[in-house]
Amino acid sequence: MSDMQITAEPGVPQVLTERTFDAPRGLVYRAFTEPDLLVQWLGPRKYTMTIDRYDLRAGGTWRYVHADDAGNAFGFHGVFHGDPSPDGMVQTFEFEGAPGHVSMDTVTFEEEVGRTIVRTNSVFQSVEARDAMVSSGMEYGMKEGYERLDDLLGKLIANR
Amino acid sequence: MSDMQITAEPGVPQVLTERTFDAPRGLVYRAFTEPDLLVQWLGPRKYTMTIDRYDLRAGGTWRYVHADDAGNAFGFHGVFHGDPSPDGMVQTFEFEGAPGHVSMDTVTFEEEVGRTIVRTNSVFQSVEARDAMVSSGMEYGMKEGYERLDDLLGKLIANR
Repeated sequence: MSDMQITAEPGVPQVLTERTFDAPRGLVYRAFTEPDLLVQWLGPRKYTMTIDRYDLRAGGTWRYVHADDAGNAFGFHGVFHGDPSPDGMVQTFEFEGAPGHVSMDTVTFEEEVGRTIVRTNSVFQSVEARDAMVSSGMEYGMKEGYERLDDLLGKLIANR
Repeated sequence: MSDMQITAEPGVPQVLTERTFDAPRGLVYRAFTEPDLLVQWLGPRKYTMTIDRYDLRAGGTWRYVHADDAGNAFGFHGVFHGDPSPDGMVQTFEFEGAPGHVSMDTVTFEEEVGRTIVRTNSVFQSVEARDAMVSSGMEYGMKEGYERLDDLLGKLIANR
């Protein structure tokens, strides 16, 4: 468990993050890639997450919706590039509220003595699109999601 | 017909290009998306291009090989994000000689009184990856490919 580090340099259409989890790599990877686990932690607590499709393979597409109690719903979709594995997964990402603005995310999982360092690398089509994503609450949403993931990983380890 | 403009700023993992063609947008889009036309112009003249697969739809994958007379062969593959159209196509791109290094390309086609402005926007996972692509001859290859495309478009217009 640790604070998330985030790097978003001025003038560069990219966001890098790094976060360590107290769990082995295989388990963290499962939490990132199994739909029934993913819905339990991805994003802020105020949203209920529904996964429409999640086809984890090269060329497979995914789509999910975050809905809140007030009736707001936010859809996201993308496609996997290459065979996803604990060594890395590459996927495109589009918020359906800003159609045509697409980013590409690379996530890697590095094991370090029973802990796992998760690094994300997101590149955007422009600095403006990157800044819009950051100012929409990306950092807050990721941090709260990762706290939920800490809890989920703790439960999964306790129940093994 | 015009010179290609290329923008690759220091410290930014992105390459932007712009090139105008003396042909209507629909025809230029066909040349970018129909395999039997694409093999006639994409890349430098010294390569023979073979398309393994080209599934032009959201989540569709593509792969092609450039081969030269000396027996060298270079494979490339990627996947389409969203429904490709003359308003824009988004795809990932990976050179198989540098596996794991993926870029995301957005191509748009703007018609301007019978001519078409093609703009490409490529974002890379790092500045180093961008610089490696640029120094591998990306600009030369695109410029020569676009000259071949000028010729192909001229023939297609003459034969209509």
